[in-house]
Amino acid sequence: MRAAIVAVGSELLGTDRLDTNSLKLTALLAEHGIELVAKSVVGDDEAWLAAELTRRLSEVDLVLVTGGLGPTEDDCTRAATARALGLTTRFDPQLEATIRRRFERMGLVMPEVNRRQAEVIEGGVVLDNEWGTAPGLRLSAGDSTLWLFPGVPRELAGMMERHLRPWLERRAPGGSREQRVLKVSCVPESTLEEQIAPAYREFGREAITVLAKPGEIQLRFWALGEPAQRQRRLDEIELRLRRLIGPAVYARGEEASLEETVGELLRAAGQTVVTAESCTGGLVAERLTRVSGSSDYFLGAAVTYSNTLKAAMLAVPPELLAEHGAVSEPVACSMASGGRRALGGDFCIALTGIAGPGGGSEDKPVGTVHIAVAGPSDEEVVHRRICYPGDRQGIRSLASQVGLEMLRRLLLKPTA
Amino acid sequence: MRAAIVAVGSELLGTDRLDTNSLKLTALLAEHGIELVAKSVVGDDEAWLAAELTRRLSEVDLVLVTGGLGPTEDDCTRAATARALGLTTRFDPQLEATIRRRFERMGLVMPEVNRRQAEVIEGGVVLDNEWGTAPGLRLSAGDSTLWLFPGVPRELAGMMERHLRPWLERRAPGGSREQRVLKVSCVPESTLEEQIAPAYREFGREAITVLAKPGEIQLRFWALGEPAQRQRRLDEIELRLRRLIGPAVYARGEEASLEETVGELLRAAGQTVVTAESCTGGLVAERLTRVSGSSDYFLGAAVTYSNTLKAAMLAVPPELLAEHGAVSEPVACSMASGGRRALGGDFCIALTGIAGPGGGSEDKPVGTVHIAVAGPSDEEVVHRRICYPGDRQGIRSLASQVGLEMLRRLLLKPTA
Repeated sequence: MRAAIVAVGSELLGTDRLDTNSLKLTALLAEHGIELVAKSVVGDDEAWLAAELTRRLSEVDLVLVTGGLGPTEDDCTRAATARALGLTTRFDPQLEATIRRRFERMGLVMPEVNRRQAEVIEGGVVLDNEWGTAPGLRLSAGDSTLWLFPGVPRELAGMMERHLRPWLERRAPGGSREQRVLKVSCVPESTLEEQIAPAYREFGREAITVLAKPGEIQLRFWALGEPAQRQRRLDEIELRLRRLIGPAVYARGEEASLEETVGELLRAAGQTVVTAESCTGGLVAERLTRVSGSSDYFLGAAVTYSNTLKAAMLAVPPELLAEHGAVSEPVACSMASGGRRALGGDFCIALTGIAGPGGGSEDKPVGTVHIAVAGPSDEEVVHRRICYPGDRQGIRSLASQVGLEMLRRLLLKPTA
Repeated sequence: MRAAIVAVGSELLGTDRLDTNSLKLTALLAEHGIELVAKSVVGDDEAWLAAELTRRLSEVDLVLVTGGLGPTEDDCTRAATARALGLTTRFDPQLEATIRRRFERMGLVMPEVNRRQAEVIEGGVVLDNEWGTAPGLRLSAGDSTLWLFPGVPRELAGMMERHLRPWLERRAPGGSREQRVLKVSCVPESTLEEQIAPAYREFGREAITVLAKPGEIQLRFWALGEPAQRQRRLDEIELRLRRLIGPAVYARGEEASLEETVGELLRAAGQTVVTAESCTGGLVAERLTRVSGSSDYFLGAAVTYSNTLKAAMLAVPPELLAEHGAVSEPVACSMASGGRRALGGDFCIALTGIAGPGGGSEDKPVGTVHIAVAGPSDEEVVHRRICYPGDRQGIRSLASQVGLEMLRRLLLKPTA
């Protein structure tokens, strides 16, 4: 089965907005092994849209349309579809009553203009939209099937799950495809590729995809078949990958973040963290506090951009700063233990570096960051130096990732 | 003149990536008053792409294609174009020599596979690409013109400016359109719309567009004609808008940020800032230090998530915390003056609030944030309370924006 996606809306042809809805539809198609061959965006123009639909219906088995189902004059998806298929529309009083009730439930009176949303195309199956007022439609056109969805992301998401997913399940060749994601932190892509090579051989090269960005890799893998069968297969691949990669796997799931994992480990251990930041300017603290409930384990941070504040807030000895410079291993370690004592946390992540673009030198180039983490016993200050050839934001982002990962590794260690 | 954009690449039909190149092309088209009627994405498939090009060329005057000009087998834009136009390709030894020299200048030997990039289509005009190895092509097809550009954003950007812009300038009906952006902070959209109503009447409703997000509005306006004429018109609109809106306009230019403007004002005044943050977790400090060179005016921050640290780092009296709670005007003001003294800055931005989703109560609902800024004289602590019904990240982001804006207003005041 081959599919095309058409997004309708003049605002999607402007300079600011992209059709992000298509990504969700694409993911659902991929799960069911359906190939997407084209996607397009057209404005709120009945003739153009009708031509686009006619063409796509002649090319593929499944055409998914989003947008243009609203109540106003410029919403022309219903009319364009009727024109493309040579069908008539009719007013559906039952559907109007449904839409009217939706408004009433929200304590509103339905504006007269919304009656337009009760126009249906002859032969179409109305798709209930409990997340908004615009009903969807499913239509047959020769050997192809056409779906009309609203463009509001929340409504589309709900209707995809309610109407499109079961329909695809029934038609998917060889059952549906399911995806699982493992997140891996601070491993070079080439190292990871080497580590998982045996899994490629066992499960097939196409079953596993590596998506890398600085400091984080997403490992995506798929399985086909019935739900129970897919779960078994995914468990099998996951177990194998975790054995091959080891503790660098920090979470399962696309939405998982390193700061969440670190937070869970801290909460489980009943321990707290503080940060002492220079070049990251508070980014590590900001990341830790993105997580709701982080006040259970995050106490605070000292952002010490100036050397004076490094001494005053973190008790870094001025002679250490003078001898080694602010961007150095001894200063990072001193910030970490000093921060732990001054702010009273069990752990302290400290970072000092040169985020650029200015301030670099031959032995301390832009991108050099010293990161230290002090733990409950003062002997166990760990240190890492990175040198990353990115821009200012990239360097700060990677440094924050490495700092969080160093803490995670400490938290994984069995306590004596 | 009407245009369509076609992006080529199977990776753009996946679940992660969108065709962002089209936004740049759209902006350039808009500048020249050319209507974009459709955009589409097709995979690396010669037959599909040829069909797409044939269709678009029959519909519009200008077809802009990006991607698929690389040296590997799956890059099929040249072959598909030749097929769509019924033209033959030929090998261009001169072009090969140019590509070879490009590699040599980088100290590399040209891989044999790159010879493919020296294939040109009969009748096409080769477009020099000094940012990469893939040359572009411009072709006439009946009354339409087809442009082939590489998909690498940096290469596309350079080639657009070098080749497409001058071509469009010559053809633009009534001269080119130029855009200017003013950025406005922390004014409700409806208030702004009222303020600028006279400008709508004077310059035309379509000359000015308002793009709002929480805490920031972009005002975009356009002018047509020759460069000097456009500049005069844009200056005229800008002056009028600035008079109508007043000091809420904080910068000109799409890329401008509030933290940059604040930084410039601090540097000009020879003054410094520190922050004292609770619910924002360091976000204001992180934003201030996104700006390169911010160490000239940013000293540091105390992120005090726990009440203990509010007392220890900022000298907030425990009885104040007990009486009013951490999220209150007196505590915010005390954090601001305490932070100023403890960290030694001329100004201190302090923020304390409930970012949610938990922790709200009837008189202090989620989204309540107290923001205070203390200035060089301790009497001048200013305070604002916001209550924003957004999610955790939205609340933190708006609070940081309001804090920076409050500081900007203080810095604008003439000193006594």
